[in-house]
Amino acid sequence: MTRYTAPTDDMQFLLHEVLKVTNTGIPGYDELEPDFTRAVLDEAGRIASEVLEPLNAAGDREGCRLENGVVRTPPGFGEAFAQMREGGWTALDCDPEYGGQGMPYILNTAVGEMFVSANMAFNMYQGLTHGAYSTIHAHGTDEQKRLFLPKMVTCEWAGTMNLTEPHCGTDLGLLRTRAEPQADGSYRITGTKIFISAGDHDLTENVIHLVLARIPGAPEGTRGISLFIVPKISVNADGSLGAPNGVSVGKLEEKMGIHGNSTCVMNYDGATGYLLGEENKGLRAMFTMMNEARMGVGLQGYAEAAAAYQNAVDYARERLQGRAVTGPANPEGPADPIIVHPDVRRALMDQKSFIEGARALVFWGASLIDRGHKLGDREAEGLISLITPVIKGFLTDRGFDMTVQAQQIFGGHGYIEETGMPQFVRDARITMIYEGANGIQALDLVGRKLAQDGGRHIMAFFEMIKGFIQENKDDTALKEGFLDPLKQASKDLQEAGMFFMQNGMKNPDAALAGSYDFMHLFGHTVLGLMWAKMAKAARQALEEGTGNPDFYKAKITTGRYYMARQLPMTRTHLARIQSGAEPVMSLPEDRF
Amino acid sequence: MTRYTAPTDDMQFLLHEVLKVTNTGIPGYDELEPDFTRAVLDEAGRIASEVLEPLNAAGDREGCRLENGVVRTPPGFGEAFAQMREGGWTALDCDPEYGGQGMPYILNTAVGEMFVSANMAFNMYQGLTHGAYSTIHAHGTDEQKRLFLPKMVTCEWAGTMNLTEPHCGTDLGLLRTRAEPQADGSYRITGTKIFISAGDHDLTENVIHLVLARIPGAPEGTRGISLFIVPKISVNADGSLGAPNGVSVGKLEEKMGIHGNSTCVMNYDGATGYLLGEENKGLRAMFTMMNEARMGVGLQGYAEAAAAYQNAVDYARERLQGRAVTGPANPEGPADPIIVHPDVRRALMDQKSFIEGARALVFWGASLIDRGHKLGDREAEGLISLITPVIKGFLTDRGFDMTVQAQQIFGGHGYIEETGMPQFVRDARITMIYEGANGIQALDLVGRKLAQDGGRHIMAFFEMIKGFIQENKDDTALKEGFLDPLKQASKDLQEAGMFFMQNGMKNPDAALAGSYDFMHLFGHTVLGLMWAKMAKAARQALEEGTGNPDFYKAKITTGRYYMARQLPMTRTHLARIQSGAEPVMSLPEDRF
Repeated sequence: MTRYTAPTDDMQFLLHEVLKVTNTGIPGYDELEPDFTRAVLDEAGRIASEVLEPLNAAGDREGCRLENGVVRTPPGFGEAFAQMREGGWTALDCDPEYGGQGMPYILNTAVGEMFVSANMAFNMYQGLTHGAYSTIHAHGTDEQKRLFLPKMVTCEWAGTMNLTEPHCGTDLGLLRTRAEPQADGSYRITGTKIFISAGDHDLTENVIHLVLARIPGAPEGTRGISLFIVPKISVNADGSLGAPNGVSVGKLEEKMGIHGNSTCVMNYDGATGYLLGEENKGLRAMFTMMNEARMGVGLQGYAEAAAAYQNAVDYARERLQGRAVTGPANPEGPADPIIVHPDVRRALMDQKSFIEGARALVFWGASLIDRGHKLGDREAEGLISLITPVIKGFLTDRGFDMTVQAQQIFGGHGYIEETGMPQFVRDARITMIYEGANGIQALDLVGRKLAQDGGRHIMAFFEMIKGFIQENKDDTALKEGFLDPLKQASKDLQEAGMFFMQNGMKNPDAALAGSYDFMHLFGHTVLGLMWAKMAKAARQALEEGTGNPDFYKAKITTGRYYMARQLPMTRTHLARIQSGAEPVMSLPEDRF
Repeated sequence: MTRYTAPTDDMQFLLHEVLKVTNTGIPGYDELEPDFTRAVLDEAGRIASEVLEPLNAAGDREGCRLENGVVRTPPGFGEAFAQMREGGWTALDCDPEYGGQGMPYILNTAVGEMFVSANMAFNMYQGLTHGAYSTIHAHGTDEQKRLFLPKMVTCEWAGTMNLTEPHCGTDLGLLRTRAEPQADGSYRITGTKIFISAGDHDLTENVIHLVLARIPGAPEGTRGISLFIVPKISVNADGSLGAPNGVSVGKLEEKMGIHGNSTCVMNYDGATGYLLGEENKGLRAMFTMMNEARMGVGLQGYAEAAAAYQNAVDYARERLQGRAVTGPANPEGPADPIIVHPDVRRALMDQKSFIEGARALVFWGASLIDRGHKLGDREAEGLISLITPVIKGFLTDRGFDMTVQAQQIFGGHGYIEETGMPQFVRDARITMIYEGANGIQALDLVGRKLAQDGGRHIMAFFEMIKGFIQENKDDTALKEGFLDPLKQASKDLQEAGMFFMQNGMKNPDAALAGSYDFMHLFGHTVLGLMWAKMAKAARQALEEGTGNPDFYKAKITTGRYYMARQLPMTRTHLARIQSGAEPVMSLPEDRF
């Protein structure tokens, strides 16, 4: 039996004391007054704890079933989905023109974290719909938007993304699904797609698939891929549902986790599809969805860890075993709670300091996205484009590790499914894989994002750190615990970048062999920056005497832990990067 | 569909070129001629690949079932178990006086790795029997040995260890199971034990439980615990089976993995038990079993990674996706195999260099055990006692990480149960938990083993490294790639030990807060030593022109990878340790 309590205080702190959202000048942020956001977060938290979390274990146990070609979701999912829809939670940041509430993305992010922590598999149905909504919104014709968006905003219709085929995942240039133009301007789509999350289900009356396919005669490789809207049930011009389209579920996959979400093999047998965006520019359109999805998966990485952590803390407080080495903490009891033991605390501090740092990063990232969307700020867009693979790759790797650590606190009980801890680990595992396996994120970061716009964004990132350190250099309390380690990490990151520049030209393998370490080096550095910013805000609040001093003191203590115990990882990552390609590449292939 | 191929060549290299077993003077090692060990390993490898591995996935899928109070093992387990028994594989290193073959423990270790890689859940039935055998062999009366050992050597009867109770795992002092003395010298055992691996099954006609319990009036805590032999079916004085004893299965646990092994709640309702060893000295006797089990679990940690790695390599060679950045490697094909990509190689090299280093460590550890047992070498016993928690904790932590990395190579396919990769991860996860969760291993290492015998064993370990470096200081080829990083790691380990000495006296938390990092720091250092030794042996073979030069070159390349890319972790572990207790302990408990 697990529980979940929404971290509303921590989110309020981020929104109002770290990011100071109402002062940013981002359109729509002026509405995000503390009372308003607290009301929204409180209500979302209630739904997360009372509606979604109680379905999480059963969703895992029962899973989805394929019955007569239709996927049945686990018991209770339908009712909960209806509640989400009726409460307007699916429409939070959608365009009011199509029935959305027009709230900033950052608010959706905060609410999303709660829903993911409470029930990740469940939340994917709406998350994928949102991604499909965004893609149609960005690339669709007015007619397409009018026809599909209102129903997707309310989640009366769901959405999916169809990229992968049996023989191609990362390398989409190989894809074979065909799209044959018809006289009426539509296309006949034929092919097989695999690993389609929420590919079919009984939560909505229709599913709008976005499908990558190749039009006959299109250029080879990724330049010949187009994107299509393929409804499960045909949609008439007046928006009413017509006949079933040629779309069927080939198989429901048996997975390691997220059993509550249906992962389908989808067969398209001459299904009617509608071109979304330009011909042969499908990949670009799909990237709208992909970038949103990558942010969302990074969020899943730490949100799953956050849920696991709460349960680990409960267990560490309740489980009596052994005595504190400094003297009994619970002398009347048969033993002390295990939270007194330094190594248990070490594990809990690892988790807590990661989760809170990750939350700050994702919220900041969301504010950059809002800034880009609403102010057209190109610098913000460049920065978030740079950081997106770090959010996806680093937060899911570390999130998984932290979920495993939370499970570890339970000892043998953590291995028993009944406690719910194995599910957290099994569910979290997918986040390192989907939306581009983490090695691909590292490749994207080092192979593309670093050099984007002439390297301007990584330089801006370094300037931001430098500026922050400079700005606060007289704050002696911040210096030792936060600024010094941040400076060292930033220096390591710069040295790594320098190594790539100097060696990657001659031998691209020299950069790529270090890409994974670079992603982690970057991750620790940016979390270090987040912690320095949070510590500053907490110190300010303490000085001003506002709020609960215990909260702010704990924030500083947690941050100091991260800086002292996690930031030293940057040294090791740098050393690995500097060892270059030779150790990685020189083993003959047949000796593996 | 997974496969397994036994690493016979690598094992032969370790036995004959690194450890040079026939030259050690250890009684019994003279029989371990290369032809003999190859014959044994070839046959064990055949059984592993052809008999055990094919049952691994089905064992996971079908699991065990509790039917009318009896556990049914998965289909095929019974036949395979009979084959193991008939082939004499359960008796390999057992005492010839009781029907064993009297082979050295090191040979059993090599064979055991294969069996674990092929089917960990299956191999536990015999592994636990072996542990119980060893405990009775070490602490039983002649009568007990005569009565139980011959049937346990042949695995006609199985064995278990019963420590944990619902309210106590690590803290055995709290245990409540009672043992009431009877007039005939036996005891009536009453209580509930949980997490009993192989607690019941249909593979043998009897199960001999070793049960920790408290005799009325015994001192409180761990000084009042005794160990008892409690057969599932009573054994008559002539060795024939009598009536069922008061032992029953309360529940079969549903676990994250090792579904093929039955993890039981065992109820003892006035069951007849026989004191094993001395009254109130049960924990000491149980430690015979526990130390053997900890070595065995360390072995599981890397053996599971080894199996996962082989399948990851196959996939990396077959899966075509993308092109090598340095130019197409498979120009005729639609894409290159993913093994050309630097980050895929990075992941495979991580796995390979860990697995081979871990194997060397465990084989060396086994030779120390043989040396202790057969020559009464106290130094060897002290050294293996020091290293056992490192073998258990470090190899299972890293083994799990490497298993996750192997799964990651498969991308989305790795998350699908059908590929077998999730099972490796789910099975490997238990190794970090059972036989003392890894935090307990770290505590044992830092809190007990470091200072054992006045710190003599850790000093001996440092001397061994120093000696090796000194001995080979003129070998320039070894120096840069191996000796220099080993020296640095050893220095870091010494500094960490120094920090504990200087700060642990004043504040024991200062040492314990760094215990987990110390275990890993130690692990990397000792694997560094193993790699330096392997590199030396490989260079020697290359110079002498014996064997396959490609094998030896690959060995050196793999070792250089470990030294260049893994050993730098010691810097980070040291930095964490030196940050002391303050960051770990200062958060108020109610702020977690």
